[in-house]
Order: sequence, then C-alpha cells, then structure tokens
Amino acid sequence: MKKLKVGMIGGGGSGNFFGNVHRRAISFDATREVVAGALRSQPEAALAAAEEWGVRGYPDYQAMIEACQRGDLELDYITIVTPNHQHFEPAMACLKAGIPVLCEKPMTMTVAESEQLVDLCERQKTPFILAHTYTGHPMAMYARELIAAGEIGEIRKIESWYTQGWLADKLEDSGLQQADWRTDPKRAGISNCGGDIGTHAFVAATWVTGLEVARLSARLNTFVQGRLLDDDFNVIAEMNNGATAMIWATQIAIGYKNDNGFRVFGTKGSLEWRQERAEKLLLRQGNHDQTYWLGANFDFWPETVASYLRVPAGHHEDFFEALANLHCSLERRIRGNRGESVPPPFAHPDARTGLAGMKFVGAAVESSRRQGAWTEM
Amino acid sequence: MKKLKVGMIGGGGSGNFFGNVHRRAISFDATREVVAGALRSQPEAALAAAEEWGVRGYPDYQAMIEACQRGDLELDYITIVTPNHQHFEPAMACLKAGIPVLCEKPMTMTVAESEQLVDLCERQKTPFILAHTYTGHPMAMYARELIAAGEIGEIRKIESWYTQGWLADKLEDSGLQQADWRTDPKRAGISNCGGDIGTHAFVAATWVTGLEVARLSARLNTFVQGRLLDDDFNVIAEMNNGATAMIWATQIAIGYKNDNGFRVFGTKGSLEWRQERAEKLLLRQGNHDQTYWLGANFDFWPETVASYLRVPAGHHEDFFEALANLHCSLERRIRGNRGESVPPPFAHPDARTGLAGMKFVGAAVESSRRQGAWTEM
Amino acid sequence: MKKLKVGMIGGGGSGNFFGNVHRRAISFDATREVVAGALRSQPEAALAAAEEWGVRGYPDYQAMIEACQRGDLELDYITIVTPNHQHFEPAMACLKAGIPVLCEKPMTMTVAESEQLVDLCERQKTPFILAHTYTGHPMAMYARELIAAGEIGEIRKIESWYTQGWLADKLEDSGLQQADWRTDPKRAGISNCGGDIGTHAFVAATWVTGLEVARLSARLNTFVQGRLLDDDFNVIAEMNNGATAMIWATQIAIGYKNDNGFRVFGTKGSLEWRQERAEKLLLRQGNHDQTYWLGANFDFWPETVASYLRVPAGHHEDFFEALANLHCSLERRIRGNRGESVPPPFAHPDARTGLAGMKFVGAAVESSRRQGAWTEM
Amino acid sequence: MKKLKVGMIGGGGSGNFFGNVHRRAISFDATREVVAGALRSQPEAALAAAEEWGVRGYPDYQAMIEACQRGDLELDYITIVTPNHQHFEPAMACLKAGIPVLCEKPMTMTVAESEQLVDLCERQKTPFILAHTYTGHPMAMYARELIAAGEIGEIRKIESWYTQGWLADKLEDSGLQQADWRTDPKRAGISNCGGDIGTHAFVAATWVTGLEVARLSARLNTFVQGRLLDDDFNVIAEMNNGATAMIWATQIAIGYKNDNGFRVFGTKGSLEWRQERAEKLLLRQGNHDQTYWLGANFDFWPETVASYLRVPAGHHEDFFEALANLHCSLERRIRGNRGESVPPPFAHPDARTGLAGMKFVGAAVESSRRQGAWTEM
Repeated sequence: MKKLKVGMIGGGGSGNFFGNVHRRAISFDATREVVAGALRSQPEAALAAAEEWGVRGYPDYQAMIEACQRGDLELDYITIVTPNHQHFEPAMACLKAGIPVLCEKPMTMTVAESEQLVDLCERQKTPFILAHTYTGHPMAMYARELIAAGEIGEIRKIESWYTQGWLADKLEDSGLQQADWRTDPKRAGISNCGGDIGTHAFVAATWVTGLEVARLSARLNTFVQGRLLDDDFNVIAEMNNGATAMIWATQIAIGYKNDNGFRVFGTKGSLEWRQERAEKLLLRQGNHDQTYWLGANFDFWPETVASYLRVPAGHHEDFFEALANLHCSLERRIRGNRGESVPPPFAHPDARTGLAGMKFVGAAVESSRRQGAWTEM
Repeated sequence: MKKLKVGMIGGGGSGNFFGNVHRRAISFDATREVVAGALRSQPEAALAAAEEWGVRGYPDYQAMIEACQRGDLELDYITIVTPNHQHFEPAMACLKAGIPVLCEKPMTMTVAESEQLVDLCERQKTPFILAHTYTGHPMAMYARELIAAGEIGEIRKIESWYTQGWLADKLEDSGLQQADWRTDPKRAGISNCGGDIGTHAFVAATWVTGLEVARLSARLNTFVQGRLLDDDFNVIAEMNNGATAMIWATQIAIGYKNDNGFRVFGTKGSLEWRQERAEKLLLRQGNHDQTYWLGANFDFWPETVASYLRVPAGHHEDFFEALANLHCSLERRIRGNRGESVPPPFAHPDARTGLAGMKFVGAAVESSRRQGAWTEM
Repeated sequence: MKKLKVGMIGGGGSGNFFGNVHRRAISFDATREVVAGALRSQPEAALAAAEEWGVRGYPDYQAMIEACQRGDLELDYITIVTPNHQHFEPAMACLKAGIPVLCEKPMTMTVAESEQLVDLCERQKTPFILAHTYTGHPMAMYARELIAAGEIGEIRKIESWYTQGWLADKLEDSGLQQADWRTDPKRAGISNCGGDIGTHAFVAATWVTGLEVARLSARLNTFVQGRLLDDDFNVIAEMNNGATAMIWATQIAIGYKNDNGFRVFGTKGSLEWRQERAEKLLLRQGNHDQTYWLGANFDFWPETVASYLRVPAGHHEDFFEALANLHCSLERRIRGNRGESVPPPFAHPDARTGLAGMKFVGAAVESSRRQGAWTEM
Repeated sequence: MKKLKVGMIGGGGSGNFFGNVHRRAISFDATREVVAGALRSQPEAALAAAEEWGVRGYPDYQAMIEACQRGDLELDYITIVTPNHQHFEPAMACLKAGIPVLCEKPMTMTVAESEQLVDLCERQKTPFILAHTYTGHPMAMYARELIAAGEIGEIRKIESWYTQGWLADKLEDSGLQQADWRTDPKRAGISNCGGDIGTHAFVAATWVTGLEVARLSARLNTFVQGRLLDDDFNVIAEMNNGATAMIWATQIAIGYKNDNGFRVFGTKGSLEWRQERAEKLLLRQGNHDQTYWLGANFDFWPETVASYLRVPAGHHEDFFEALANLHCSLERRIRGNRGESVPPPFAHPDARTGLAGMKFVGAAVESSRRQGAWTEM
C-alpha cells in the first residue's frame, strides 16, 4: 500500500504545538506522510520551516495548490492548521482544486462561510474532516455506536461540558499568545469560550447522539474584568427529538485542565464518558452498571471500532491516537473512493458538523444578548 | 451528661424507612433517645407502633405536645417524619409550645407557610433544623468551612446536580408508594423532581457557598407520559453576588442512584464534592489539586468539624453518620442554650433554608411555565 | 420482637474507642441493647462507667456472670472488649455459663487457650462470634457467597494485605497507649503486626475463600530501631487445596490508613475487594470485568446478604454497619436457636477462625526465626 | 538537526506487533527514522518486509552490519526486535561494530551472555538501552527522581507486581504463537512468567529505587496442567540496603491485563504507581497524600523529566510515548556523545539492568527448586 502524501497549511515553526501534533498523527501509522507544506504566513518563514522539516516548501498555500494543479506536486490530502480566522480561504481553495481536507476547528468565522464550504464539499463529494480530536478516540466512537444501536433507547436528556481553568486570570495581558488571540474579537470572532471549547461540548452532544439542536437559551459570562469576549458559556437546548440538553463550557474553573465529557440519558439506559478518563465508558441499564474499558480484548469491540485500535488490552490510547484516527478515517475515505480495499471510514465530524457548530455559537451569542430568549438554530 | 429525650411525629410502622433511620440517628451517640411518639396518623396504629418500639405512645401529635405542656411528658426536642404535606402543622405546634424541632424536608407546602415558620422560629429563638441529610457529612461541612475561609476566593460559578434514575418508568402505576405520592400534586405540591431532589441541589449551591439565588431561568420536563408532575428540572440562576449557577436534578437517568454533588469555581480555586464518593473532597488551587480524604488523621480537621467525626482514618462516614450529625448539631444548640458545655453547633440548614428552598422551587415552576423567563426569587 | 439484652466486659470510660463502637453497633438496629456491664478492670471505675452509660454495673465480669447464673440478671449474650491479653478468661467464663459471646480479636494469647475455647463452644454449641469487623461488610459477605457458588472456579492464588503507616516512627515512646501495648510482648504476645493486622489479612484469605493454610514461609521485620516486636509481616502460604497465598501486613507504610484488601484468582475468574473502597467489588470473568456496587438496588443481592443491608442504593455502608452485622448475625443464631423466625445467620468468623489465626501467627513467627523455613500450621 | 538513521533487526511482517510499535516509537518525534532493516529471519521474507516498509533491506543482520562497516550504509543505532532467544548474537555484533543498540527484553538467555554484553558495552562505552517500556513513562521517571531526591527517605519495603490473566488456560495448545514460544523452554529459557513479566516487576523494584536485590526466596508455580514452565512467580527479596521486597507476577489472574505497579515505603513517605493508571503517581508523606497527575502544567515538572513530555495538561501519555522516550533517551546519548546540544539523557535501563534481571530470574528458579531456600543473586 502506497503511503498517502500529505500537504500542510500552517503549523510550521518549532514552537507550533498543533503543527507538530498533526505531523505526528499523520505519520502515526506509516501509511501517510507529510511531503509538502506552506507552513507559515510569511513566505520566507514558510520556506525555512519546510526546510527544517525536510519537506517540499511553498511560500503560500496558493502556490502549493497551484503546484498540485500543474501536476508538479502530488498530494492526497491537505491538513489546515492555520490560526482560526484563516481556515476558510485555504479550505475553499483546496476543495475547489478537488483536494480532500482535514481542517482544524473552528471551520470558519461565519455561518455564511460554513454554508459555502458545506455546499462545495457536498456538490463535489470531496472528503472533508473537521478535527474535533476526541471524536477519534475509540471510546467516543464506541459510545456513538452504542447509541446508534439503540442500547440506551430514545434520548431524553443530555449533559455535555468542557471545564478549563487556564483563563481564570487575565492571561491575555501577560503576552501569552494562546490567550491573546482567543480573547480578541478580530481573530476569534464572536465568542471565545463558546467557540473554542463550547463547540467541543456541542459536538459531544450532537455527534455522539446523532441528534441536532433545535433551539436554545443561553447565558454567556465574562468573569474576568476587561476581557473582550466570554469566558463562560451556558446553554439549555431543545434537541430535534424533544430532548433537553445542558451544554456548557468554562475557562475560569481553576485547576481543571481538559475536563470534557458527556452523560446521555435515554429511555433504556445511560452513557457517560469523560475525556480525562478516556479509556472508560459507563453504560448503565436497568439497575446495573456496565463499564467498558479500553482494556477489553480486541475481540470485544464492534468491527466499526476495532480497526481503529492500536494497543493491546491494558494500555491506553489517548490524544495522539485519537487525532491519528481522524487522519486514518480520512485516509480510508480517500482510498475507498479509489477502490482500494480498506476498512470502512468512521462517520467523523465533517463540514456539516462545522456548520452546525457555527450556527450553535451564533444562536447562543444572540440568545445571551437577549437575556436568554429561546433562539432557533 | 443526661440523655436528651426525643419525641417523634410520624415514622412508625416496620416498613417506614425514614422513621427507623431517624431513630437510629437519634440513638447513634448514646446521648439522645426516642422516648415518645405519635408515630402514625391513625390513633390506634400510632399507639401500636409506639408499643412496638417500646416508647410512650400518643394517638396524635397534639396529644403528645399537650402532655409536654401539662408536664406529663418531658421532651428535649421533636423529630417530624410525617409525609411531606404534613410537616407544617405539627412543626408550628411544636414551635408554639417552645419545643425545638428537627424536621424532614420539604419544610412546608407553600412559601406562606414557610414564612410563618421562619417568623416563629426567629421570634422565639427556638432551635430548628431541616433534615438535608448530607449537609451533616463532615466533608460537606468542611467544604462550607473552606469557602467561608476564602480558600477559593470570590465565587464566580456553581454547578450543582442530583441525578437519579428510579422514575425513568411510570413507577407510580406499579403501586410503589414512594413513587405514588411524589408524583401526586395533592401530596407533593407543585413539583416532584424539583421539590424532592432539586432542593438538595439548591441547598448544595447556597448552604455550602453562603450565597443566595437572586433570580433564575428554568426548564422543567415531564419525560414519562401521563405523569402529573415534572421528573426533570433544570435551572440557570444568578446568585446575589453575580455568580452564575447551574442547578439541575433528574429522576430519569437510568442507573444513577444518588449522584448528588457540586463544583464551585472561585477567583482563587475550585471545590468539588460528590455524595457517592463522600469521603473525598477536591480542592484545586493554581495548577495543583489537593484532595482531602476522610482518611486524614483527626488532627488534620478544623475544630469546627472535628467534633463531628466518629471513625478513625481509613474508614468512611456516610448516611447514618451524616443524619446523626444533624441531630447532634441540634443537641448542641439545645444544651448550649441551657449552659451545658458542648462544642459549638454547626450552621446546619434551618427554617430560613427551608423558606429559600420553597421560594426557589416556586420561582422555577413559574419560570418554566413562562418559557424560561428570568424570575426573581 | 423483644430486644436482646447484652452485657459488656471491658469497653468503659469515655476515651475507650472500641467500647463505644460496640455499644453503637449493638443498638444499631433497635433489637439489641446494652443493659449491664463490667466495664473496667478496677471495680470502682467499672461501677462508675456503668453509671455513666445508664446500665447495670458490676465490679468485675465474674460478678456479672454470677448474677446471670443466680437469675438476678438476664443476658442474651455478652460482648468482650477488654485488652487483648484479657479475652480468654472472661470468654471461657461466659461459655461455661452457657452465655453466647461476641469477642474482640485476637481471641486468646496462645494456641492452647484457643483450643480450649473451640472445644467448649463446639461441645456446648454456644454461639460465638469473633469480631473481624469487615467480614460483616455486605460486600465481603457477597464475595464469600460468590466464591462458594463457584463463580471464580477452583482457587489458584490469593493475595491478601493490610497496609498501615501509623507505626513508621517509634510511637510507643510518645506515650500513645495504642502503640504502647501493641509493641509490648507482655500484653501483645509473640507478634505485633502479625497479630494485630496480619490476622485480618489471614481471615480475608481463608474466611472469604473457605480454604485453610496448610504450611507457610514467613519473614517478619522490625524496621523501627529499638522496637520489641515485628512491625512488618510477610507470608507465602500453601493452602490446603494447593493454592499459593501471599499474605502480608505492614505498619510502616507512611500515609496508608486501613488499606486492607484481597485479590483471589481462580480457574474461572478473579475477585478483588479493598476495605477503603468497601462498596465496590470487582469480579472478572473471561475478558470482562463486572463491578458490583453497593449502589445496586436491593433486589440485586442474594437473599443471604440482602437482609444485612440498611441503606438504599447510592449510599454506603461502612464501619458501624459492618460491626453491627456481626452482632446481628449473633442475634440471629440466638433467636434461631430459640425458634424465633429470623433470616439465617451468616457464617461469620467464630472460635475456629480464632484458633486458626493463632496457629497462623505462631507458625509465621517460628518460620521467620528459622529463616523462612516452611512450617506446618 | 539531522534525523538519526535507524536500522532494525527483526520486527518485519504485517502481523508483527512489536516491529510496528518500535517503528512508530522511532518516528514519533520526527528526529529519527527507520532507514534499513534485516526484518525477518528468512532472507527473502526479510527483503520483502523491507520493501513493504519502504526501507533498505538486508537478508540478515550480518549483512546489514557489514554494510555499515564498509561504509555502504550509515546507521546511528540499531533496534533489535527478534524473538527472545535471538537477542544476544545480533546485539553483540552491533556492539562489536560500535553501533549503539536499543534491544527488546530479555537481553539474553543466560547470565554468561549478559555478562559478555555488559563487558563489551562498558569497555567500549557504546550506548545501549534495554526496552522496559514503562520506564519511559514520565511518571515512572518522576518516581525515580523523587526517590533519588530523598522524598521518601531510606527505603524499608517494596511491593512490586505484574498481574495478567491471559495464560489462565492452556493457550499454547490453541496455536497462539505468543503463548507457544513463551511456554517453550527451548525458546523462552528457564522461566516463562518470571522471565516475561517478573523481570518488569524486578525492574520496577530496582530501577525506580536505585537498590539491588541481595538475596531472595522464591516460589514458582505452574498452575495450568501440562505447561512446561512457570505461570506464577513469587519472590521475597532482601535488598542491598536491608529492605524487604515482595516481587511477584502471575499470568493466571483472569481478567487482569497489564496490572503492573509498585509501592515503595520509606522512612519519610511512600510512593505508589500503577501502569494501568499511568498518569497518576501517589506520594504520601506524614498524614497527607499528594497525588501527581500528568495533568499538572509543564512548569510543575523537574527539568530531568519535562523534556520527555509531549501533551498539554489534561491529556495522557501512555504506551507509545513511553517507548518513544526510550528511543529519545538513546538518541540523546548518541547526539550528546557527538557534542550536539541536547537535553540530558535519562538513566533508562541499560545492559547492566539486563544482567541483573537475568541473575534475578536465575536465582528465583534455583530458590524455588530448593523449596524457597534463600539464594544469593
């Protein structure tokens, strides 16, 4: 099996966390490798970063895509790791050139942009994956399969949260870049906390359950004085099947790191998962609790999930494995489209997920401005 | 030290769970004992139940209180364990006779009744404790002390929940008495889930933090078809210091038993406690987590809590110990008022807590009827 | 049902932890009560302690037993809570008078004494229970039932431990009474750590499994300089079915409180329990783990255990409940012998268990002296 | 920084778990890559496997090493992933050619071979790492640092274990290759359970503490009928500082996967770690417990460990990260020797560790044959 050739837009520079993380996830399985990149926004820096990685460098993403179109460069897909407000344009350019994309979240800065992107993806049937990392964790995938199989019945209620504490103080004044752009409306858009991690809670509530948010009532807070965007995000939502969902996120919960999780309550059972204990999935039916551990032997897993596992029972899969699974899932779509024999790709978040997330954050911001008035998605 | 003599109203009959539970909690420390009771609503049954327990029996609570007033019976306090809609009248009668009371929750059926009760308590300074059981757990008490001492700074956000699953089906049709009266508006009042366990979540959010709810937006659901009251209860509240609180309770979360807990986030730290892991309290400050275990040696505890502990390090205290602590706290108020030398009573929930709970549930029911409109307490 | 009348030998004085603990356990269910006692070794102190508790006082245990024999006092059973080296004589006296006994552990100071006691119990069929507290915990009882029912097959290996840290320093020099007598050969006998907590690990390995130790190799250590007895105790044992058991206890594990637990490995499955997480029992069969929580509803439990439960699902039972169950079990033997209709008593540790424990510690001390030579029980 | 070029001996074939695992660990950081290999024992299969991976293929390891010596191939180090009985010869060949080695465990089949290897390594100062995977986990590394820094004082007692259940039945008869060679004396040597996982428990007891085993008493069992080697392994050891260690491993504990862990008790504190909860390290000092989570922010970690971390707080590192750290540690030795500026290599297990492990298993087998007689290492 020939390795897939991957291009990267953004992500260069030794201090760039996500660039290196995606590079690692891409090469995780030795069936994919980064071969080219427009790795930074300044042309010279972009070329230097490519040199550093030992891949073919381009001054900007347009040049890289043109090289593909000219036949000078062969890329099976492109990974977009630019700052949030620079996702839309390169993604559109890739799609227009017919190149599959794995894009960091958030997908775009506006609903209108997301709609264009969905439209293009679906018209062209170009594979597109949105990098909600932990949807690639086998246990999150398994949760989705259990719900789809009806194991907890019709869903009545969802609780989904993401608790962090790193923005409890005004870190943006300290010069920390991560804090700076996230709290700047020009680069982060209409919401900091909602857009950054509220969307993860939203994806947990919808992607895992297969449901959609119909309308919502929200309360966004800015607890840190002088901050320009929300740092706390609370939503009560009505799902399209009538279920109620509590979806909330906060960045001011001191000492909490990545406490992202969900509990889903149905007519036949309940399901609970927390990312910080990712190897454990709690299914409760009747009076009994059943706990699934990643530690279960391979033959325990449904086929749809089994092919995404990499370690024997008793070891854990976590961050890199989850992200690699998103790349793996895209790889399978690409190979499958070519008629190669691969296990089926999993239904990981795509452009439509990205659009829903944009609408969700938009509706929440609006509802909060209107004192929690119920707002349609 | 002479044992306190305790009378009980309600609670008789071998199948009565709470009557036996309180009797056990009363005699837990050998400094209190049940000596008399009007244990059931039917006079004959009441006398038979007293006979069975070997205590002095009365046909009704009025008779028992009159015996006290006549000097025929000496009672240091009375415990009220009647059905919910029969708390107010005996409580008032006791208080009017100057007899201290430990009353099961909810305190009354209406806000107006609660106001009368608070008024009487405070005018007479008669000790009164409302039986929110787990406020008697040393770890809940310790959480309150840590917050009062400023360990987590000014509070910004509270999450407080109570998750149960036993009413996921229409159990009231099965003849189960516990389900029957709770879902019957005549006996349970305006709310089932909110009144029964939502108030526990409310108490966690207020008693532990020392804050009050200013106004709230609520969504109550009745998920089980044909049920007459809510079985799911969701509130976003604004606290009197501006903090936001998520307070919710549900009875349809299959497999969950008594998953009651809170997380409180302040400007200096966070505090987390779950009743099903009651011996553990998580304090997070800065980047670090500090976990308090009941397993810590006695000299670890602040004096205000230490005198309420009964087992050495490495053993757990739980349900009976917590309830016994409420009786113990009342005992100390009574003895202290008499000038006996006892450790200080802890600030356990009193009539004012009961009044606030009634207002809270009332406001939530009203807000939910008005589509989540923000409603003052 | 008439309350059982209980006498107590030892345990008086306000600072006596175990006396108060047993008194609480006795009255836990309102079907038993302490009515008389020879509560301290000095006659005057004994009478004063009885006065303090409000029970009939005797200057010494002989006087109390004689009162029973004369018909002046009616006792259904006697609880012995004297210091360790004073268990044998009063136990024999009770048994000779035909009075059932619940005795604190260790049962005696020598094997010969234990043999006399077993002999008397069995000849007379007088009920006798040895207070290994946590054998009264419903989960420990359930573990025994699961093994007896063959759920884990034939047992191959046992790991049983008790880890404490309170004697990591030479606490006996500080005047702490608990440390003083335990490390004094005159009052503690041939072993400190082995006798005090090694026997708990031994009981876990034998009572839970139904197996006996055939022979053993031991290594006892005294890590704290100047200490007169062992503070660390390690045994490899061969069980009577050929299984191997690791049985060890230590008092120098700083920060550990009552970390007592076992893991039993059989041909069909494994069972794991830890006293500090007493509400949880892990059964593993095939590749799957099944976790039993005390949180399971009542109808989950086998009948043999169900009647020993006191709290609804989601609350915990612990120290007092476990000890109360031993008294409850004795109560049922007594009532059953009289033809009263009670649930069956559970097979809690009796005099034979006490004898086996004495032999076990004796063999371990001998083996350790002989450099770990295999020694018959 | 130029990528290190790595050769691999063994590990080829799509079903080869450890070959793929090492390849992934090698390329984890994009500073190392596999460029050549003698990947299988049959020359043709070896060349085909290299073709499949896209690396330079050699028919056997001798040919690969000769190519290096001739200057035809440049390798910075070689990874040995052959079956256990084929580690010694290629390792010696690499070392003789002056090529650094990362070798799977066990290092050799006999003590004499291990001694030769140590001798050669030390005379030549050629870097050599033995792949005890979890010694590369940051938490295991941190445990070693805490002990070396004196945080728990002088060590008195060690408990170290490895519990597995996969060989509870006679799996070697099922044709499973993993079971087959491990239980075959010709390929596994004198011990199955001791050699395979007892050595992990041994390394935990020695590498983490910095102590050595002086002498030991052992009991090895073969619980599965007809099996040719031990499947259960129990050692009581005396350490070179007088501490006592319980070191045991079993493969018949049904349902346990990789329950490897240790508890170390010193004069000032205790340290506990379990591989299946690898992100958590428990330090207990005085009455208090301190829990270290991998979730702590980067600035929490000592410099010696910090440079081996790859994910932000709140995510976990596990199997691949640990193995990659061993390669990373070797990389730093190699680069450091060349004068490149790299963080200091960590003291991961080397040839001397391998020798000690061989002696340990040998002494245990001998002691067990002699009924547990104390045997010098």
